[in-house]
Order: sequence, then C-alpha cells, then structure tokens
Amino acid sequence: MFHKFGNMKIALAQINTIIGAISHNREKIVKFAKEAADKDAQIVIFPELAICGYPPTDQLYFDLLEEELQILIDQTQDLPITIVVGTITEQPQGKPYNSLVIFRQGKILHRYHKVLLPDYDIFDENRYFAPGTPQKPVEINGRIFGLTICEDIWITDPDLKGIYDLNPLESIKDVDLVINISGSPFSIGHPARRLNVITETARLTNSPVAYVNHVGAQTDLIFDGRSCIVYPDGTVESIAPAFEESLIIAELKGSGSFPPFVGEPWIEDIYDALVIGIRDFFGKLGLKHAYVGLSGGIDSSVVCALAVEALGKESVTGVLMPSEFTSQESIDDALQLAENLGIKTLNLPITEPFHSIVKVLQDRAWKDKPFDVTEENIQSRIRMIYLHALSNKLGGVVLNTSNKSELATGYGTLYGDMSGALGVLGDVYKTWVYRLARVINQRLNKAIPERVLTKPPSAELRPNQTDQDTLPPYDVLDAVLIRYIEMHETATQIAKATGIDLSVINNIINMVNRNEYKRYQAPPILRVTSKAFGIGRRMPIVGRFETAFK
Amino acid sequence: MFHKFGNMKIALAQINTIIGAISHNREKIVKFAKEAADKDAQIVIFPELAICGYPPTDQLYFDLLEEELQILIDQTQDLPITIVVGTITEQPQGKPYNSLVIFRQGKILHRYHKVLLPDYDIFDENRYFAPGTPQKPVEINGRIFGLTICEDIWITDPDLKGIYDLNPLESIKDVDLVINISGSPFSIGHPARRLNVITETARLTNSPVAYVNHVGAQTDLIFDGRSCIVYPDGTVESIAPAFEESLIIAELKGSGSFPPFVGEPWIEDIYDALVIGIRDFFGKLGLKHAYVGLSGGIDSSVVCALAVEALGKESVTGVLMPSEFTSQESIDDALQLAENLGIKTLNLPITEPFHSIVKVLQDRAWKDKPFDVTEENIQSRIRMIYLHALSNKLGGVVLNTSNKSELATGYGTLYGDMSGALGVLGDVYKTWVYRLARVINQRLNKAIPERVLTKPPSAELRPNQTDQDTLPPYDVLDAVLIRYIEMHETATQIAKATGIDLSVINNIINMVNRNEYKRYQAPPILRVTSKAFGIGRRMPIVGRFETAFK
Repeated sequence: MFHKFGNMKIALAQINTIIGAISHNREKIVKFAKEAADKDAQIVIFPELAICGYPPTDQLYFDLLEEELQILIDQTQDLPITIVVGTITEQPQGKPYNSLVIFRQGKILHRYHKVLLPDYDIFDENRYFAPGTPQKPVEINGRIFGLTICEDIWITDPDLKGIYDLNPLESIKDVDLVINISGSPFSIGHPARRLNVITETARLTNSPVAYVNHVGAQTDLIFDGRSCIVYPDGTVESIAPAFEESLIIAELKGSGSFPPFVGEPWIEDIYDALVIGIRDFFGKLGLKHAYVGLSGGIDSSVVCALAVEALGKESVTGVLMPSEFTSQESIDDALQLAENLGIKTLNLPITEPFHSIVKVLQDRAWKDKPFDVTEENIQSRIRMIYLHALSNKLGGVVLNTSNKSELATGYGTLYGDMSGALGVLGDVYKTWVYRLARVINQRLNKAIPERVLTKPPSAELRPNQTDQDTLPPYDVLDAVLIRYIEMHETATQIAKATGIDLSVINNIINMVNRNEYKRYQAPPILRVTSKAFGIGRRMPIVGRFETAFK
Repeated sequence: MFHKFGNMKIALAQINTIIGAISHNREKIVKFAKEAADKDAQIVIFPELAICGYPPTDQLYFDLLEEELQILIDQTQDLPITIVVGTITEQPQGKPYNSLVIFRQGKILHRYHKVLLPDYDIFDENRYFAPGTPQKPVEINGRIFGLTICEDIWITDPDLKGIYDLNPLESIKDVDLVINISGSPFSIGHPARRLNVITETARLTNSPVAYVNHVGAQTDLIFDGRSCIVYPDGTVESIAPAFEESLIIAELKGSGSFPPFVGEPWIEDIYDALVIGIRDFFGKLGLKHAYVGLSGGIDSSVVCALAVEALGKESVTGVLMPSEFTSQESIDDALQLAENLGIKTLNLPITEPFHSIVKVLQDRAWKDKPFDVTEENIQSRIRMIYLHALSNKLGGVVLNTSNKSELATGYGTLYGDMSGALGVLGDVYKTWVYRLARVINQRLNKAIPERVLTKPPSAELRPNQTDQDTLPPYDVLDAVLIRYIEMHETATQIAKATGIDLSVINNIINMVNRNEYKRYQAPPILRVTSKAFGIGRRMPIVGRFETAFK
C-alpha cells in the first residue's frame, strides 16, 4: 500500500534540545531542516515538543509558543521541504494541546493534537495539556499520513492495557506513512519494549511507521534517540544511533529484508547513558570541571572514569580525603586509578577538622558518649565541605557517587557523601556497579585497579568496617530492592518469588521506607531504570506503608 | 426543598489521618462513627480517601483497599448510623477510582466515583485514578443525595473555568443534601476561595451542601479542615474549627439566618498552619526533640517560637554557634529569646573547626585566594555538622529556618543553613516573617526581642555583612517574587504592574531560575501559599527560561 513513497526521502531529525531555550532549539531545527533539504529529503520530522524541549515543566505556564512557531515557519519558508515538528497549541480557555504541526514554505498544512496523555512514573502530561480527539489520516501533497504523538501508539503496549478509553490508531489503516514524534526516555529494557510498540503499530495499521525521538539528557532524564522506520512485516531500518544527535535520511521502500534490530547489551547501554548524562549536564549548564571524592572504592572509581569519558581528563579532579580509618590500600587504589585515568588529584586529610569538631561537641554538648554514627557522619560531612569549597573557590561542581542500593537503604550520610550536583550512580544497583566497572575496564584500558573490584566494600568510617556489617549481601539486597521498587511487589510476594527469608525482606523494605526523608534531599539522579528515585517515584516522608508488607 | 431533613442530625467527621496507616485511620473512623451514633446522628461523613490518607502517593500501587473497606464495614455493623467514607475502588483493568462509599450496618448502599481529577500544583490524580462519570442523585433511606468528591464542585471556580469538559453538578438539583468529601489543603486565600465554591454549589444545585475536609499536616501539605454546611442562600453553619480534628453534629434546618463565616486574618492562619505543620511532623513520625540554630536573627527566632508552641519548651533546644563575625548583639538577642521562651541552649563556637578546615585547603588546594563565598559556606556547613551531630547523638531532628525569599534567590548555603528535616518558613516571604513575628509577640508574650525586629538582617558570615549587600530591599524583592512564582507573570508584566525597574526584575528572575538546583535538594517545606517550592512547582535544573523574560 505504501508504494507511493517509492523514491521518497524522509529525514528523521533526532535532536538534542535544551528545555525552555526556544531560540537555541529553533536554530537547531532550522539547521537540521536545511541539511535535510540539501540532501533532497521531501519531509523532515522532529521530535515531540521540539521547540520548547521535553519535558516542558512548569515553564509552560509562561509560554506563548504560537509566536515562536510562527518565527520558525518564517525562517524556513524558502526551504523546499515539508517540516513536521512538535509544539504546543494554546486554547482560548483551559489547557493547551501537545501538538504535531506540519508546514511547508511558510504555510501550515495541518495540526494534530496528542490524544493519550501519560501520567505515570516521570510523566505528568495531564498537568499541562488537554487531550486531543483521534483524527482520521490526512492527505498532504498527495500522500496519506497517519499522525500520532508518543503515547498515542503505546495503546499497543500490553502493560498499559486498559488505562486508556480512546484508541488513536483506530481509524489509521493502510496509509502511506504513520508518523510518531516522541519524547521517550531511556531505561533498561525500554528500547526493546518501545520497538515492540512501534512494530505493533506498523502491523495494526498495515503501514510503515517513522518514529522520531529526542536524544540527550535533561538533568535526570536521558533520551536515547534510536529513531527508526518500521514496516508492517516487522523489518526495521534507518535506525539512528543511540545517545547521539543525528539526521537520518531514509528512503521508504515497498518492502524487503532489512538487518534485524539488535539492542545493545544493557550494561553497555547504561554506560552510554551515564556518559551522555554527565556530558549534557555540564555542557548545557556551561560547567567546566568535575570534582570526585576518591575513596579507593568501586563507586567513586566508576564515577571518576565515567566523568573522564564524558568530559575529558583535564576536566576532572580526584580528591582524596583520608582519615585515621582510611587504609593504605584505599589510598594506593585511588592514586592508581587517577594515574590510569591521567587526572590530577588533591589530598585533603580530614583528621584535624574532625578532632576539632568532636572536641567542641564533647566539651559543650555531651561527655563520654561512645563513638557511633554521629562521628561517622561528621567525617563524611567534612569531606563534603572540602569538595564544595573546591567548587566554590576554583569553579566546577561535585559529582555524587551514591549508588541505588545505598540510596534505597539510607546507607549514606545526608549532606555528606549524599551531596553533589548530579547523582551519577543513583539509579544503578551496587551489583550493577561492579558490572559497569568491567565494561569500563574493557573500554578504558583497565583504568580501575583489579583490587577495587575484589575487596569487600567499606565506608571506612570506623575501624574494620564493611558494608555487610549493616546491610545484607548485595546480591540479596538488590534482588529484593528491584522487586520492591521497580515491580511494586509486597514482602510476601517477594518472599514467594525469591525464596529469601521474609524477615530479611521486611528489614530491607523498612530501610527503604524509613529513608524517604534522605532521598527527598538527594541530588538529581541520572535515570536508567523504569523506576528511579526522584520525580518519578512519589512516597510520603510522613506516612506508614502497611500494604507493602502484605 | 430540604425540609425532609427536619430534625435530621448530620455528623461532619473532620479527621487527621496518616498516609498509608490504614489500621490507624480505620480505628479513628470507627471511633468517630461511634461517637456520632452516640450523639444520635443519622449519618456521619468522612473526608476523601480517609482510609488510606490523602494524598495517597505511589503507595497506591500496593494497595488492596477493597479488603480494608470490608474490615471497616464489619467493624461498624452494629452502629445505627449511615457512614460516608472516601476510599479507592479497584478495577479489573486500568487505574482504580477515587470513590465515595455509603454503607450502613454491614451493607454497602452506594458508590460514587470522582469525576474531575485535578492535575495542577500539588495535585496529580490522573497518575493514580480513572475518572468516574457524572451520576444522578441517589435515594438513601428515603432521602435524596447529590454526591461529589472534592474537585467535582470546583467546576464552579472561576479560575478553573474551561479546563474540564464534564460537569458533575449538571443533574444535581433540589436534593435533600449535596455531600462533598474533600482533601483540600490550606494556602493563603484558599479558605475564602473554597467557601465561594461551596456556596456556588449550594446555589446552583439549590440544595444544602455538607462539606467535609481533612485536617492536619502530611509532611509539607497542611489541611485546615473548616468543614461546614452551606445553604443555597449563602448562609454557612456548623463550621468545624480550623487546624483541629473535630466531630461536628449539625442539624439541618430548612433555612434561616446564621452567623456569617469570618475568615481568620491570613497571617494568623499562617501561624496556626505552621504550628500544626511542626506538631504533626513530629507526632506522626514519633520524633521527640527539635534543634534550632539561633543566630539572633528574625528567621531562627520565629522558627524557635513556633517550635515551642507546637512541641512545648522542653522539646526544643536553641543552639548558638558563634564565629568571629558574630556580633555580641546577636548573641544577646538569641539568649534573650531562649530565656523568654524558657528553652535550653547550647553554645558551640565554630571558630576552631573553621580555621582548621581553611588551613588544610590553603595548604593543599589553593594559596592566597581572597576570602569569598567559599569561606562563608564553610561556616554555614560547620553549623550544619554541629546541629545534625546533636540530632544523631542525642535524638530528635533539626528544623530548617530558610525563608521563601532566601530560597527563591539562592541566598543560603546548600548543606548549610538550607539543611534540616522540615522547612518551617520555606513558603513564607521575608516581609511576612516580620508580620509573623508580631503575631508571635502578641500570642507568646513578646518572646522575640524587639531589636530582632528592627535591626537590618545579616548572615554575619563576613565583617559588616547585610542581606542588602546582595539582595534588593525585601519589599521590592517579595513583590517581584510573588508575581513571578505565584502568579506566573513575566518580567514585562511585573514591570508594568509594579513600576519596578525592569533590570531589577530581570536580576531577581535570574536568581530564581539559577537556583533551581539548590531548591531541588532543600528539605520539605510547609506549604502556606498557592505555589510553594516542592512537588507543586516543577522546573528544570538544566534549562533556560526564555519566556519568563518576555
């Protein structure tokens, strides 16, 4: 049915926008449209809300995007190409629409408004938009298009079954091309799930689908791109690279055999996601330098290596902050890592300030109380003071090294090692951090010393401490955390599924619940799973969690 | 038309729930239902989602509330009273409903599902619920009821005009009673706006309205209660007290003249809201003691006084942490405040740790750099270490004293004075803090020394510092902040409305935008305005804000 597209060139413009930076985004759109026209594409497709950036946040309350769209239309009026772009459409009353606009040489040809507004995890689109109503396919320059925006095709996803009443695909059948413009962030498993949704859409509509996604990081959210064209028989072609801005020119063919889509191994996907996450955070904010506190442990080693990969070795300083509890091994491992990565280091001992602070407290606030978590937190917080003093005095920001297992259980010091401008590993479980370290050592020439990967993890805040004094073994811990946090299973369900002792599970769930207050004040966290801590997970600080234990 | 209710007694059960604490909430519901029955009420009405608490948060993903409702029905089956309660109704597929259930002596008589799901500011109900469809009035024991849940009657609010397609009130006319069960949090001006909505509902339906709201604080959200009955002619009666749990027995009368509703002066409302905010945070979490860093300034004085009012003087410690930049006046004022309030104090000088930390940095990280914000932040962060060490070693938590003007402009130290378990003044502009201090001095026998109210505010982090070295005068600042944050006005609009110089406004807006990253890691903040920092305001950390300047 889509033979009419023979020799038609479609450009998929997978761009990296900045939220609210309308002029910047528009310049990029014009540039990509020009390049697409130069390459003889007849139509160029940009992602959802490409003009204002996605997610738009409460800035939408200020926006007057109709004007901004008009400027874009004016600026592209000499280009011999049809442009498809996501923007908002104001309504005289009530909320605006999340729209797809098609224009060519100064003239708007069509508008489509998103029908299905997602409201789960990190999505809150009912906050900003009114839903559109399903549209019949439209004819543009003699060709028939089915139009959709992101969630509109997720009606085909088995996990979302039943949550929407309307089906935007209902009247789309045998068209020349289904267009879907998206803002679909990366998480593990999501690219495969998403491809399944696109394939189902192609099959159900019996039409090829051109899918165009955002790429790049918006603070915590990382968009992997992976724009592509999918045919009704399931063949996939013209896949844009993951985590890279790019313009793909696709020639729509009748049918044929194309190379199968091969997903990246998931741990390498996490590596790429975290690197672009760091790079975009620094690049979009104009930041030049990162400080990483190096303990000689696995988390700080991995963060430091990722920062070097993202920013270059000149832009990273490793900061050793030893105490009387720091082992020589740890110092050696940290220095070896820095040498392997080629970064400068600083050595700022915390011993004197620690004793100075403890003395004031012992003289004036308490006497003869045993060493406990108080003194552990004081050490961690002096390190925070050092790191952020470097940031203040010398410029740049501090990267946070807390992993997801620690954040989940509250195994970390608020305002201490939980501080930082960006949480690099906050959505990566401890057992995954080790796997990530292996990937780093493959890619970065064994940068992380082998001993870091094999010694028992320790916070070194008191003599002979190890993480397992406080926490269950990490494989047990992570197995429970994934089921509790990501799969919303109750204690009983987890016990049944894993065979882990119910008391261990209850203890873990209690730790998670008790520490909502700490996570509330954690840095933004690069999201790589389907349920990261942050805006996508909303739990009360004051509350109980009775049903979690059922 | 509502004469049938002659001699009928209605009980409005304005309860204070704990989110997720289903057994606790249910016990309270049973207790109130019993009391209502003992007082010969024929019907008792509880707030929205009274069984699981409001807002329910992501805990709903675990909930199996149908069972929990059944237990409640069983436990009240011997009570000769009709019970109206908010709970959720599971659906086999898709999201559950936010429901009102009517039952009596073991039998469910009716269910109504909320039609309008709010999605703005702190509300995100499309995340959790499927919308119901409007219902015709129902007959229960010979009387006709119109049923609504919270937002359903806000269709009458002028500010929400046009955002909803359905009108749940359409078929409700001339009934015996319109019931509205709500979870409507306090903010300044909201009680009056809410009463207008209830009155409009009574007028449009030509029926009396029984309005039942939650009371008490849920971390940041403070519910003021103020349940009441409103007649079509605008008379209001049986108003439950603000910020207090209570059971009001109302006899519905045909008509008549009732005392007019008098709103509290708004600054006293803030006082009451903050006191219950602190009290519920401590009470519901089982916390026993508060630490407040006393600088001798207005913010810490006000927080300390509010804490004493909420928790009692035995439960508050004032902590002086002087440096070489602290004036004797400040120390005297802090001690005088503590004496007036009858609380203990500690004096923990920061001078030695400060010099110890600065020395390490100067020896090892930089040489001969002038004193700047680095050294200011170090002082603030040592104070944080002291305060949280007290919390760790002696129990209790630290109250945060940052006001809204500071948080808006980033005039504060992240992990320093911005730390704490709960932000008491984070939604109170600086100019309002002074007004609040006057209320405190009326109510608490001039607890705050007069000089605190008259001296120029200073952080005392360097010699002769005052806030106005960095910030515009607070009256100018606050005027701009209110328009930018709460009214979503752009720079040009603010200039036009206020006559303030555009460059001053742009500078303030820039400060607000630049400091999203700091507020992201701020403590939860007690909400008293229509737009508090926190979950109700969502702005990107990485982003630009072009349209704000238009």
